[in-house]
Amino acid sequence: MIRLHHVAFSRSFRVLWLLKEMGLDCELVRYSITDGSLRRPDYLELSPAGRVPALEIDGKVLFESGAITEYLCETRAEHGLGRSPGHAERSTYLEWLHYAETMAHLIANLNLQWVFLRDPSMRSPTLLRIEAKRLANTLKPLEKVLAEQDYLLPSGFSGADTMLGYNFLAAPYFVRFDKFPNLCRYVDRIAARPAYLAARAVDGKQTFYAQDFYEVADG
Amino acid sequence: MIRLHHVAFSRSFRVLWLLKEMGLDCELVRYSITDGSLRRPDYLELSPAGRVPALEIDGKVLFESGAITEYLCETRAEHGLGRSPGHAERSTYLEWLHYAETMAHLIANLNLQWVFLRDPSMRSPTLLRIEAKRLANTLKPLEKVLAEQDYLLPSGFSGADTMLGYNFLAAPYFVRFDKFPNLCRYVDRIAARPAYLAARAVDGKQTFYAQDFYEVADG
Repeated sequence: MIRLHHVAFSRSFRVLWLLKEMGLDCELVRYSITDGSLRRPDYLELSPAGRVPALEIDGKVLFESGAITEYLCETRAEHGLGRSPGHAERSTYLEWLHYAETMAHLIANLNLQWVFLRDPSMRSPTLLRIEAKRLANTLKPLEKVLAEQDYLLPSGFSGADTMLGYNFLAAPYFVRFDKFPNLCRYVDRIAARPAYLAARAVDGKQTFYAQDFYEVADG
Repeated sequence: MIRLHHVAFSRSFRVLWLLKEMGLDCELVRYSITDGSLRRPDYLELSPAGRVPALEIDGKVLFESGAITEYLCETRAEHGLGRSPGHAERSTYLEWLHYAETMAHLIANLNLQWVFLRDPSMRSPTLLRIEAKRLANTLKPLEKVLAEQDYLLPSGFSGADTMLGYNFLAAPYFVRFDKFPNLCRYVDRIAARPAYLAARAVDGKQTFYAQDFYEVADG
């Protein structure tokens, strides 16, 4: 039994999607990001920073989506979604895998300010501008890489794509993608994958974004 | 020739320290975080998000400290600082390695607001409170783990310690450590390691913190 502790439209989608790519079923335990359930002592036993995902698998509980992705790709190597130590693409695989989190943190910062603060006056317009610009900057190297190839690695789809590709659920709320045509084609490509569609079907509807785009005021 | 692109007191210290643990010399190329040098096109060729570290090694350039740490530990396995796929501690090693970045991002957010905004009115007192509290929360599971063992993994020092241990250069500017005695002993333990001392000696003095502690106002 594989059990994924999950919030819709969050980092745990990375693991949900990766499991679908591997044809592995999991039981979902759903949480809300706003009702305090992730700060409860029993949840902190599973994931010490109070974040999703946590994954129960192979008789243990793993936290941190990057660690889980690496672990799944290593222990289920027959699916060819990892690049083992020594592989020619190993360092590139690791770079994008970690880069996914650099980028996801900018998204998390924007989510926090735009969506989760209880009063707009608590925001910092300066920080919103900085974070949105930084997020846009993280797209530029991807646009370049994806001019040459269909996925992040030359040899094809991998766990780096499930890590980083998740970010494109949220990034379009904060950055306009029209300057990034290769990236747009990549997003369409991953969104057409049967495993992605299967994961989105059970992920659940996001309930926190109330508008389609969060525009930063000039300043 | 190993060349590390470096900012004093930043994430690149992780790699500097790890290289010292391995007895590997490197040439340092120093940058300032405030003079725009990390946004220059030639630097973005090395590290696409304009972050340090970037590491030139083995005829390639790597970015993302987590990826570099994994790569170094794998390609220099004789130092015993990694835990290879299949190792009993592999998942725990990966968890703390990625957790280090979850924590470092909170530090980066606090740095940005307290130190790098050009005017204090650009800050959000609410965000400062939230981020400082989240950072304090990330210390709790470490305090628990370090009650039982000297380092993050039961079998001893590893690349997870160089990744996560770096955070304790900056975290004490934002969180008081007196409630975390095991963690304090851990910090003393890593700070006494010859490789850590050697890395600190060349790291350079931090120039951005102007005070010893950044107190969050009640609210």
